[in-house]
Amino acid sequence: MDAKVARSLNEFSATAIAKRIAANELTCEAVVRDCLARIAARESTVKAWVNFNPAHALAQARALDRAPRRGPLHGVPIGVKDIIDTFDMPTEMGSPIYRGNRPAADAACVALLRRAGAVILGKTVTCELAGMAPGETTNPHDPACTPGGSSSGSAAAVADHMVPAALGTQTGGSVLRPASYCGIFGYKPTYNTFNKAGVKPAAESIDTLGWLARSIDDIELLTDILCMQAPKSPRMLGAAPRIGFCRTEIWDTAQPETKTAVEGAAAALGRAGATVRDIALPEAFAGLHALARGTINHYERAACTAFEWDHHRDKLSPQMHRYVESGLKTSRADYVAAWRRVEECRALLPAVFDNLDVLLVPCVLGEAPKGLAFTGDPSMQAIWTALHTPSMTLPTHRGPNGLPVGIQLVAQRYDDDRLFACARWVWQKIGSDEMVGVGRAR
Amino acid sequence: MDAKVARSLNEFSATAIAKRIAANELTCEAVVRDCLARIAARESTVKAWVNFNPAHALAQARALDRAPRRGPLHGVPIGVKDIIDTFDMPTEMGSPIYRGNRPAADAACVALLRRAGAVILGKTVTCELAGMAPGETTNPHDPACTPGGSSSGSAAAVADHMVPAALGTQTGGSVLRPASYCGIFGYKPTYNTFNKAGVKPAAESIDTLGWLARSIDDIELLTDILCMQAPKSPRMLGAAPRIGFCRTEIWDTAQPETKTAVEGAAAALGRAGATVRDIALPEAFAGLHALARGTINHYERAACTAFEWDHHRDKLSPQMHRYVESGLKTSRADYVAAWRRVEECRALLPAVFDNLDVLLVPCVLGEAPKGLAFTGDPSMQAIWTALHTPSMTLPTHRGPNGLPVGIQLVAQRYDDDRLFACARWVWQKIGSDEMVGVGRAR
Repeated sequence: MDAKVARSLNEFSATAIAKRIAANELTCEAVVRDCLARIAARESTVKAWVNFNPAHALAQARALDRAPRRGPLHGVPIGVKDIIDTFDMPTEMGSPIYRGNRPAADAACVALLRRAGAVILGKTVTCELAGMAPGETTNPHDPACTPGGSSSGSAAAVADHMVPAALGTQTGGSVLRPASYCGIFGYKPTYNTFNKAGVKPAAESIDTLGWLARSIDDIELLTDILCMQAPKSPRMLGAAPRIGFCRTEIWDTAQPETKTAVEGAAAALGRAGATVRDIALPEAFAGLHALARGTINHYERAACTAFEWDHHRDKLSPQMHRYVESGLKTSRADYVAAWRRVEECRALLPAVFDNLDVLLVPCVLGEAPKGLAFTGDPSMQAIWTALHTPSMTLPTHRGPNGLPVGIQLVAQRYDDDRLFACARWVWQKIGSDEMVGVGRAR
Repeated sequence: MDAKVARSLNEFSATAIAKRIAANELTCEAVVRDCLARIAARESTVKAWVNFNPAHALAQARALDRAPRRGPLHGVPIGVKDIIDTFDMPTEMGSPIYRGNRPAADAACVALLRRAGAVILGKTVTCELAGMAPGETTNPHDPACTPGGSSSGSAAAVADHMVPAALGTQTGGSVLRPASYCGIFGYKPTYNTFNKAGVKPAAESIDTLGWLARSIDDIELLTDILCMQAPKSPRMLGAAPRIGFCRTEIWDTAQPETKTAVEGAAAALGRAGATVRDIALPEAFAGLHALARGTINHYERAACTAFEWDHHRDKLSPQMHRYVESGLKTSRADYVAAWRRVEECRALLPAVFDNLDVLLVPCVLGEAPKGLAFTGDPSMQAIWTALHTPSMTLPTHRGPNGLPVGIQLVAQRYDDDRLFACARWVWQKIGSDEMVGVGRAR
């Protein structure tokens, strides 16, 4: 949201905040105060934060206001999913096992944000150990609906204008799904290209950091900070993008609003000048989402939760029990066969992307489901997480209940810059700032 | 070493210990007492352990002797590299920054070993943050020589018969190089197939757990435990192996003892019935070791050490300063280009392995170098670490100073079972128990 039309500082983008603080037009304290005011007004409904400490946020802001400019995020508040370590705040991972847990160090990503001058505003609610058992966060568009998960608090806080941007993680669909449900941008980079030191693993062969924001500028800004480079936004295309429209084999599981959104986007982008070609994935991709969500995810979950399972089993949720039990029953042979299949598909991707810049694919089954007990189906995101490709959701559409429905763009591995450039082109043609986050009335 | 010829229980293999405890022929306490006696006799020279607590080791052993059999490692002592979290012992990572650090949980691998009944005998010395700045460990064959690193204490303790097996990690050559220098078996699995939860990252896109032992049986036993399967040793070949003998482009950097060892092994295996074919790596592989050791390693090190760099820079070693400074100067474009190159090579591996079971390659430049300030050159191991292939070193040879020189076998990704089977065949033909670890006289 542009600063010119924003009514209070918590509605500013990270990019706008950074620019105005650098120009001495704002103080960091003023920004944090407006974020805190928004949180005070809305947190009892949205419940996006854990162990929230306004005094500590203000202290960071005041220290930055007194200090020389640290970097391109000087004074910008950021939310951090609570499975990501912070040395100055508890990291409880949505699990009673880690109540009061105080890590010895910041996660690498948090340290890099602080190095650039960010205020770590607080920790955001995560599903238990970044799995499927939700916290109390609600969807800021409708508190009766899930915000999605497992990066629930990060998505809800950004959508509700409590903070301009937040860190999340994605193992199945834990960044893009909540971003889509909450109506914001969510980005999952190429696997293994952003450091996960200090981030609790869920299934590490597919775990990926991600970030959520209300603009592509902000997604790019965080990307540059987290890959230790000077900001270089915006990435731009030299020509209209070549888009592969791919319904995927689970198209039939999508609700009408998703089909309308993705087909509508394909048509509109074609009219706007993009080359849009229908593509089908090779047969090898059949069942990939189930391998990723089942075999790989459960087996690795059982391994990485070995300590919690043996020492604190009674404190793990029923959902986690099902995952671990399924993983313990998975044979090594099936696990290895699953990876061989995924790698076979990955090797086919250059052919899938032949003469294409990005794929346009469904992101979610539909609007955020009613109820808070289930964070929604991750299948549409999990395919691409397992393939290690970069992906982004854009809040382009709404469903029958007025809730957001995002589309998903996917690029080839290591082609994240092209993804950003295409996303920007797509957003300019079919996006609208009015669709981002909750409206003013709330 | 077979129990029949071992003089004291610390010389038994993990497999033999487990079998005899299961048959009520031994107590766990007796085994641990012999390990502690060996440590008491030799630790002032070898310096393999950190924060070593004999009382805690004995307490674990007694508890296991009182308890029903927990699993296939019931009563077996294991050493754990000190960058791997333990909930009941400090985890100091070879760095003053983490002095007294007490993790909230066991690493997944440690929890799985305990689940199977292992005694975590203690933590073994690691280079600073699993990098290149060594601790005080010496080579048990000659205390004037490096044991290699960064899994220095794990290799030295196993070679010195202080413990039958130990966990390490490899980012360049941190398992296979110390195993080769100390004259034991060292195994690095296919990347990302063993859980690293609770292990301090160094460069996570290449970080891999590994284990060190004095027999292939023990390597296989730990493998099965850590992949949550019932033990199924030994893997056997149906026919003599097809071996690709690959000198690699850095052959000329090897010392005579390495050339003699690897060429001698190739010839002897051919005489023993293996199909041995000279192969050359495609041109794309040129410079891979430098990309892995330089661009990828330094860039990721700079990211994952962000907290330590910003908060405790004066406590980082000069070696770490050089790595981080090099990483901070590495551009994102160069880093991504390095990964594209590595992946290009990885895609060529099926052709490299055409009609071959394993590659026979150099493991180290030569014997362990004199001095303790440098843990040796990791180039020969780093190529394969970056390619994510499984590899194993076998203590088949000795150099001019009587120090061990291992050979290296490499299999295709996910083909670890074939690697084991080939290693067993190779060991039966050209190995000798006399070559494993330090001799009796010491």
